[in-house]
Amino acid sequence: MGKKEILVLEDLLGSNNKIAADIRNQLTQKGILTINLLSSPGAGKTTLLEQLFTFLHPHYKMAVIEGDIETERDADRIRAQGIPAWQIMTGGACHLEAKMIGRLFPEIPPDLDFLFIENVGNLVCPASFDLGEHLRFVLLSTPEGDDKPKKYPKAFLTADSLVISKADLVPILPFDIDRAVREAEGMNPHLRTFITSSTTGMGLKELAEFLISRLKELRKNHA
Amino acid sequence: MGKKEILVLEDLLGSNNKIAADIRNQLTQKGILTINLLSSPGAGKTTLLEQLFTFLHPHYKMAVIEGDIETERDADRIRAQGIPAWQIMTGGACHLEAKMIGRLFPEIPPDLDFLFIENVGNLVCPASFDLGEHLRFVLLSTPEGDDKPKKYPKAFLTADSLVISKADLVPILPFDIDRAVREAEGMNPHLRTFITSSTTGMGLKELAEFLISRLKELRKNHA
Repeated sequence: MGKKEILVLEDLLGSNNKIAADIRNQLTQKGILTINLLSSPGAGKTTLLEQLFTFLHPHYKMAVIEGDIETERDADRIRAQGIPAWQIMTGGACHLEAKMIGRLFPEIPPDLDFLFIENVGNLVCPASFDLGEHLRFVLLSTPEGDDKPKKYPKAFLTADSLVISKADLVPILPFDIDRAVREAEGMNPHLRTFITSSTTGMGLKELAEFLISRLKELRKNHA
Repeated sequence: MGKKEILVLEDLLGSNNKIAADIRNQLTQKGILTINLLSSPGAGKTTLLEQLFTFLHPHYKMAVIEGDIETERDADRIRAQGIPAWQIMTGGACHLEAKMIGRLFPEIPPDLDFLFIENVGNLVCPASFDLGEHLRFVLLSTPEGDDKPKKYPKAFLTADSLVISKADLVPILPFDIDRAVREAEGMNPHLRTFITSSTTGMGLKELAEFLISRLKELRKNHA
């Protein structure tokens, strides 16, 4: 990158961070726990949200912001479950930015418990953009291979939770769960890891309970 | 994006395209067929190259340029097969650019037949950057889902070939090959599609033969 590109990027990140801090502050005041989901395309973000809904509904209210380059496919899937969803189409851009979330803010019901933001399927760019979330999840699906954390470090370094998805496929794939988890937690010792499968239900109850406990903490700390 | 960011991006793409055209011209003169491989992380680009080597070696000479954010893992795997490989670590950047290929140019043996460039695992950003290749391949692995072409259109619109990888997993996955191929070819009727599996060998001989025929064309047209 040249000097001009670096300056523009610094401007962009600085202004993004200010908007994100403001969004997080408002979400905290409203007591809405907000989770930003990062992964490669097809790692199972939308399916995970569909599954989590079955654990959270009807005791907790959730909504989803979907980020995609093109199509409304993911928001349509989420709405078909009866979950409110907004689709952001980036029209080519490789990540969501805080200002895109800010524009939707007036539409977000104030009585929500959980707001999930499904980022563009991309293990690289979204890691650099704070969206005002309280928690960042990185999904790593087993068919991608257990060597990914060090190859795509920023997503794993900035996440609060590592969700290994499609763990039911491990018996037929060359994926060593211990290796992947050891490598990711070695880079980021604060990571909370969940081994999950949306097909068998493995790990989903634990993940839902973790979210509920973090929601209670958020509300207790800002009561 | 603001006006300033758009101008910087236009500068970047314009200068990239000039360097890429110069690289392609030199590769054509040398008769080295060059292929740029795009896909999500973990779609099987490195494994495909290892497998193609078994069809091309010893009659044809190949070499590989590996693009990754961090680590030399992919180049190490390729070198372990006895294939010359160079690793470009982008240090955070989400794609390769033509100037990175240009810097390696003096090291590339002039008697090569095939030069493969394995781009950063990312279905978005690499699609905007011409590297001076003759052919662009986009890999779509079956665990990613058959809905990806329209969600990540640029990679499919700019590719010459669609390589469906991990096709051996279709019986246990919700992946409809016909749907994926129909959608991709509907967007880009010039796509040449190969249904492959590096585990069973499906489609690899056809892919190697396609590359050999394109190499012969390149040399015939520039004899």
